[in-house]
Amino acid sequence: MLCRTLAITIGAGQRAGLQGSASYAGAPRAGIVMSGTAVARVEASNDVAVPVGSLVVCPAGWQDYSAHAASKVRVVDEGGDPAHHLGVYGTNGLTAYFGLFDVGEPKEGQTVLVSAAAGSVGHLVGQMAKISGCRVVGVAGGEAKCRLLTEELGFDAAVDYKSPSFRSDFKEATPDRIDIYFDNTGGEVLGSALRRMKIGGRIVCCGVVSQYDTSKPAPGPFGVPGLLINFRVRMEGFLVFDYAKRYPEAWTRMREWVEAGRLVPKQDVFEGLEKAPEAFVDLLAGGNVGTRIVRVAS
Amino acid sequence: MLCRTLAITIGAGQRAGLQGSASYAGAPRAGIVMSGTAVARVEASNDVAVPVGSLVVCPAGWQDYSAHAASKVRVVDEGGDPAHHLGVYGTNGLTAYFGLFDVGEPKEGQTVLVSAAAGSVGHLVGQMAKISGCRVVGVAGGEAKCRLLTEELGFDAAVDYKSPSFRSDFKEATPDRIDIYFDNTGGEVLGSALRRMKIGGRIVCCGVVSQYDTSKPAPGPFGVPGLLINFRVRMEGFLVFDYAKRYPEAWTRMREWVEAGRLVPKQDVFEGLEKAPEAFVDLLAGGNVGTRIVRVAS
Repeated sequence: MLCRTLAITIGAGQRAGLQGSASYAGAPRAGIVMSGTAVARVEASNDVAVPVGSLVVCPAGWQDYSAHAASKVRVVDEGGDPAHHLGVYGTNGLTAYFGLFDVGEPKEGQTVLVSAAAGSVGHLVGQMAKISGCRVVGVAGGEAKCRLLTEELGFDAAVDYKSPSFRSDFKEATPDRIDIYFDNTGGEVLGSALRRMKIGGRIVCCGVVSQYDTSKPAPGPFGVPGLLINFRVRMEGFLVFDYAKRYPEAWTRMREWVEAGRLVPKQDVFEGLEKAPEAFVDLLAGGNVGTRIVRVAS
Repeated sequence: MLCRTLAITIGAGQRAGLQGSASYAGAPRAGIVMSGTAVARVEASNDVAVPVGSLVVCPAGWQDYSAHAASKVRVVDEGGDPAHHLGVYGTNGLTAYFGLFDVGEPKEGQTVLVSAAAGSVGHLVGQMAKISGCRVVGVAGGEAKCRLLTEELGFDAAVDYKSPSFRSDFKEATPDRIDIYFDNTGGEVLGSALRRMKIGGRIVCCGVVSQYDTSKPAPGPFGVPGLLINFRVRMEGFLVFDYAKRYPEAWTRMREWVEAGRLVPKQDVFEGLEKAPEAFVDLLAGGNVGTRIVRVAS
């Protein structure tokens, strides 16, 4: 089928792909389309299962049109904002869901810390942790993002990692230490979290955005593995694709939360495919709030 | 009761105590006895539960005599080598047992890597992994230790981390990558293991002997948390004391293995309490094979 791209999403994890990381599609080469997931409208179809006019999610890449076999697209429904299929119902939301619930295992009353908390995954993790009855602390860059977390998204506290008082702010925001740290960044925030973990705590390793945009990755934080032993901490990496069979469960629950207004997906939008490189570079500089969308057509 | 020290054991973890690590007894002060676990003979007793002549394990410290309440000692039986109560039936064996079985969860046919593999905990971990039907690879310092592992203790392969060909030797010894890494060292061996983990593997964080004997701890290895994500690895720290209620289960099983000749506890002995400091310094330099014992009296 021929698909007209409506919008693509851009995620920090794609930067790892540019390094040739084994877990992603591999390093790009000249003449190859930059990869990216899109919502698209089917304009021509040779498969009765996906008729013309269907709304689909597909690996369109950064282009206006793309052609796919029916097995490579997923038909999605028309209700709600189509861009949500790239955010809360896309890889971001699924990553937040399985990382938090399956790896983190939150229990009511526990303290959950999230880094890149205003980001595409983080802002959903924090809200899901609130739904689970946890106290939620977000780490984000800048006052505006921190205000968004506490004033709009229900976080109990937010700490600005760019502030000169970060260390003391961080300690103050976690008086009962940390049961679960959902780590989207690695680096210094991971190091700070390690020193504040509760005995028996868990660190969900989801992303390493602090390390993607460099050719000289930093060593791991001090305290690995020493503090893991002292605090009996479990630190575990995961990839959302391993949970593919359980996506429908996550979609059902997340849709209920979104429709009830308990889970508020945020997105920020760049208009026009030609803005995709700028949107990507700005994302890696920490510019995004929620899911970054590049709108290509309507 | 008054206890005559027969033998004390010295472990690398005590070095962490000298740094004032929170998980141990705290930093030493002048005039305070250096701590250490001993097997001892009761020479006087005010408690009928522990009569004169009993053989006990007690926190004697580095001294010939110590006085304890009955609740602070554990009466052990006379059968076998009394020093085994400091090794295989002491903290070393219990650490190996709960770390391997409860944190590592080995399954038949898996590859288990152990660092400090000729050490007090490591030589027991490797043998228990063999009992579980695993392929076992040890990392140790020097040819003599490596030979001990493969020729006497049944390891399938041993790699000398001091050898200039360590990197290629390590890769060659783990052709199917690593399901479980039992980490006694942290540092470079941890870094090497991280790059060779199998998807879904587990790293048991037991000790950080590469970092104890320094006032400038190194940062964590490269690849934390990035490789944990790529390989979906769980890395978990533990302290044996958390398993205290289940020690009898471990003693029962380990005794069966020792008596059947399937688990061979090794020890190396320094004669005389005055040798304790030398025994400790040498241990931190990697001198020991098995449990280090200082024999005080017979």
